[in-house]
Amino acid sequence: MSNIRHALTARRADDFAAWYQEVISAADLAEESGVRGCMVIKPWGYGIWERIQRLMDDRIKATGHDNCYFPIFIPLSNFEREAEHVEGFAKEMAVVTHHRLIADENGKLIPDPAAKLEEPLVVRPTSETIIGDAMARWIQSWRDLPLLTNQWANVVRWEMRTRMFLRTSEFLWQEGHTAHENAADAKEHTLRMLEVYRACAEDDLAMPVIAGEKPENERFPGAVETWSIEAMMQDGKALQAGTSHYLGTNFAQASGIQYQNREGGQQYCHTTSWGTSTRLIGGVIMTHGDDDGLRVPPAIAPHQVVILPMLRDKPEDEALLAYCEDLRAAIAGTSTLGEKTRILLDKKPGKAAAKRWDWVRKGAPIILEVGGRDMENGTVSLLRRDRLWDANGKPDFSAPAASDATGLIPGLLEEIQQALYNEAAARRDANITRGITSLDELSAFYSGDAKYPGWAEVQWSKPTGAALDAVVEKLKALKLTVRNVPIGAEPVSGTCIFTGEPAAERIYVARAY
Amino acid sequence: MSNIRHALTARRADDFAAWYQEVISAADLAEESGVRGCMVIKPWGYGIWERIQRLMDDRIKATGHDNCYFPIFIPLSNFEREAEHVEGFAKEMAVVTHHRLIADENGKLIPDPAAKLEEPLVVRPTSETIIGDAMARWIQSWRDLPLLTNQWANVVRWEMRTRMFLRTSEFLWQEGHTAHENAADAKEHTLRMLEVYRACAEDDLAMPVIAGEKPENERFPGAVETWSIEAMMQDGKALQAGTSHYLGTNFAQASGIQYQNREGGQQYCHTTSWGTSTRLIGGVIMTHGDDDGLRVPPAIAPHQVVILPMLRDKPEDEALLAYCEDLRAAIAGTSTLGEKTRILLDKKPGKAAAKRWDWVRKGAPIILEVGGRDMENGTVSLLRRDRLWDANGKPDFSAPAASDATGLIPGLLEEIQQALYNEAAARRDANITRGITSLDELSAFYSGDAKYPGWAEVQWSKPTGAALDAVVEKLKALKLTVRNVPIGAEPVSGTCIFTGEPAAERIYVARAY
Ligand SMILES: [Zn+2]
Ligand SMILES: [Zn+2]
Repeated sequence: MSNIRHALTARRADDFAAWYQEVISAADLAEESGVRGCMVIKPWGYGIWERIQRLMDDRIKATGHDNCYFPIFIPLSNFEREAEHVEGFAKEMAVVTHHRLIADENGKLIPDPAAKLEEPLVVRPTSETIIGDAMARWIQSWRDLPLLTNQWANVVRWEMRTRMFLRTSEFLWQEGHTAHENAADAKEHTLRMLEVYRACAEDDLAMPVIAGEKPENERFPGAVETWSIEAMMQDGKALQAGTSHYLGTNFAQASGIQYQNREGGQQYCHTTSWGTSTRLIGGVIMTHGDDDGLRVPPAIAPHQVVILPMLRDKPEDEALLAYCEDLRAAIAGTSTLGEKTRILLDKKPGKAAAKRWDWVRKGAPIILEVGGRDMENGTVSLLRRDRLWDANGKPDFSAPAASDATGLIPGLLEEIQQALYNEAAARRDANITRGITSLDELSAFYSGDAKYPGWAEVQWSKPTGAALDAVVEKLKALKLTVRNVPIGAEPVSGTCIFTGEPAAERIYVARAY
Repeated sequence: MSNIRHALTARRADDFAAWYQEVISAADLAEESGVRGCMVIKPWGYGIWERIQRLMDDRIKATGHDNCYFPIFIPLSNFEREAEHVEGFAKEMAVVTHHRLIADENGKLIPDPAAKLEEPLVVRPTSETIIGDAMARWIQSWRDLPLLTNQWANVVRWEMRTRMFLRTSEFLWQEGHTAHENAADAKEHTLRMLEVYRACAEDDLAMPVIAGEKPENERFPGAVETWSIEAMMQDGKALQAGTSHYLGTNFAQASGIQYQNREGGQQYCHTTSWGTSTRLIGGVIMTHGDDDGLRVPPAIAPHQVVILPMLRDKPEDEALLAYCEDLRAAIAGTSTLGEKTRILLDKKPGKAAAKRWDWVRKGAPIILEVGGRDMENGTVSLLRRDRLWDANGKPDFSAPAASDATGLIPGLLEEIQQALYNEAAARRDANITRGITSLDELSAFYSGDAKYPGWAEVQWSKPTGAALDAVVEKLKALKLTVRNVPIGAEPVSGTCIFTGEPAAERIYVARAY
């Protein structure tokens, strides 16, 4: 549809990375802060995060977790256990060495040499070790188990190359940590939280995901099992959107998390950990954005409906605003997806057309424009963000009666939520290639003409150790990685494309963020 | 009532500071983290914070604010403006100087000398300057005003002497920053946010406060007006629980926050800022705690009702649990204070009496104990935390029919919310002394026998400059400070107790946290 004048300059099909950056700026989601690797999350971006956070938090609490808060600083000594086993240990982390700032003789600000910390502190890259220490204090007996904790916090990992929402030095996340009596309980919990992530991604973010287990080489260090949800972005790459780890007793042993069991003996707990982050916003952008900006699924839209009165700086404006305010109040009284409908009457000064395109770029699910003629006719001009253009390349307005809007909106929003999911799921399914039976075919497929080749589902013999390393190297040459072994895949029916041995599993391979 | 066996060891009347620490530990609110000056906020304490945060956030959003998120790190240069005007500038702040941790030749972890930052970064003590920079970028014209932002975040101020929730190196807070076209709009907004704080303190935390303006010497540096809410703790000391500042154009000039006005000229914005923090939890403890632990006002209680089944590790437990689950579901279906009633069925193993006293110390507003006899009789044993003891010094259980509990609970909770407020307001009113007409009387009053003398309301001539300094010194000798000039006080009717001049205002003086 070349006659459409899209709201963005960059096109997904031409330059996905440039398009991504443009969406972030055009939808007013975030901006560079001037502090290296750290971003400012602006109201619309942070509002989306608040919605994700609230829905995810409700789901986490519903599985029995309480939230806690642990210190931002971690003593160096907490990393010693980790360093002991690593030759040439080096970690990119922000290290606090002084507790005072002074002006030197020239008036230049410097860390006060007299205020050097005896032991430097690290700004938490995760709270793993400090939560482990707390669990060791809090758990005495089997009666204290399961211990189900979660934390929402900012963390810092010094990054050399950053990309907003996907890889930033500071980011916001939740990390859950749990301790259990035995392996069965802990494994069950690992999968329960994976399911929480799947449900949140698919039902709240309308972002279809594949849940499955990571291969051995992609396991979190120290984990016995690592599970992930993987989403396909519109450039066919995979985004790991959440992980859940079963840690066996490895972390319990490192942190001394023991309990007295029902027979009176001392035993190590089996622990789990799992996390998601502001990276999910990157996933939402790359799943739902189009050449006109972002499209926010109604469940996580800070404002699901925006009313734009077409003000003319004339006395008639007053009646128009009153008409709009009545409409706003009526719709605000309705329920959408089990919550109050979130509606904004945008009274900010400015040209109506400019404001419309601002909200299109931001991706508010429904825009209601109301001008003098609408008011006379008792109608509103309704624009669905998920179906922006008509067949002639014009914005596809409908004109329901204002009195019908109240009854209409909740259903429309729920329809949009589903439509965004369906569209993404159909695209994902269309971009998974099955039936590749050799490494040569795989190589040919990814070296072919397709700009965004998507994922391949292949069968392998589940190699481990050196055999796995060899496979990883072969994939690396194609810039591919194994994403996961999907839960509930078809039974295997052939040979491993890497080793020629009988296949043991189906796996997804893809390029990834 | 000496025959009562209280649940805590320390008594408020004997050693308030020891009592405070004991409540924090006995109610399982927080603990020392091992990282200096930082605390671990445990589930019950963090749950209270989440409730405060949600209610406060709703109020802040209702006044038109959006939340944002700004980076945790602040470049040194942002403090240069401040340092320029201060002889011997020195500030207690956490300074990040390195971005990598390595193991040295002995395996000891050290900041990598090769990864020294060119410009050290400060862990934010506030986001004032970085938000100022953002406002300068975001505001172009009067159409962008008012700009109403708010941030929820952790901040760090290196503290030498810490006390949990009241003064910690890291704490959680919200800071609001707004920009306006003119002084009148900004001043009006300053008071609007003060009123948000008053309403949240009194209606949500059941903590009565005095809202008023701080005297000149207590103003936030750079502010034109500083307003506060002040609460009286049970030891008669004042706790500043929130502040709201009108900053004139001082911060706008420092950060270059300008706009094109309606006539096309360039002008500085008038700005405001305001904040509250986890300190509010300290206020809740010292307002509502008693010798049996904490009492949490229902509006901010993570669980408003806790059901304790008296399990006996016998087959009968199953029927009892089913009975309790029915009760839980019925009460969970009711509404309290405009939200779903928050109820927990505590099935954790453990002796019923021990569990009861745990929840008493934590301060759950209503405890419902259910044993085999209750089930037979179709009743529940109901304990109100705000009226724990009967005249004989026994826990004051009532025994309503289980079928009535559903109808009863919401009203009871609302009654408890009001009762806690009334109790605190009556105590505060009883501990404000009026009619002191000279400094000698004031001195005598605070040197007298009363262990917790409370506040004095006195009249003064509103001295400024050197005259004010002299008053501050006199008060300091009595360990007193001026808290604020209350809004809506009686008209003055006498002379200043410090200067003998005609009185201009009534003020509260008190010892303070
Ligand atoms: Zn709980
Ligand atoms: Zn908004």
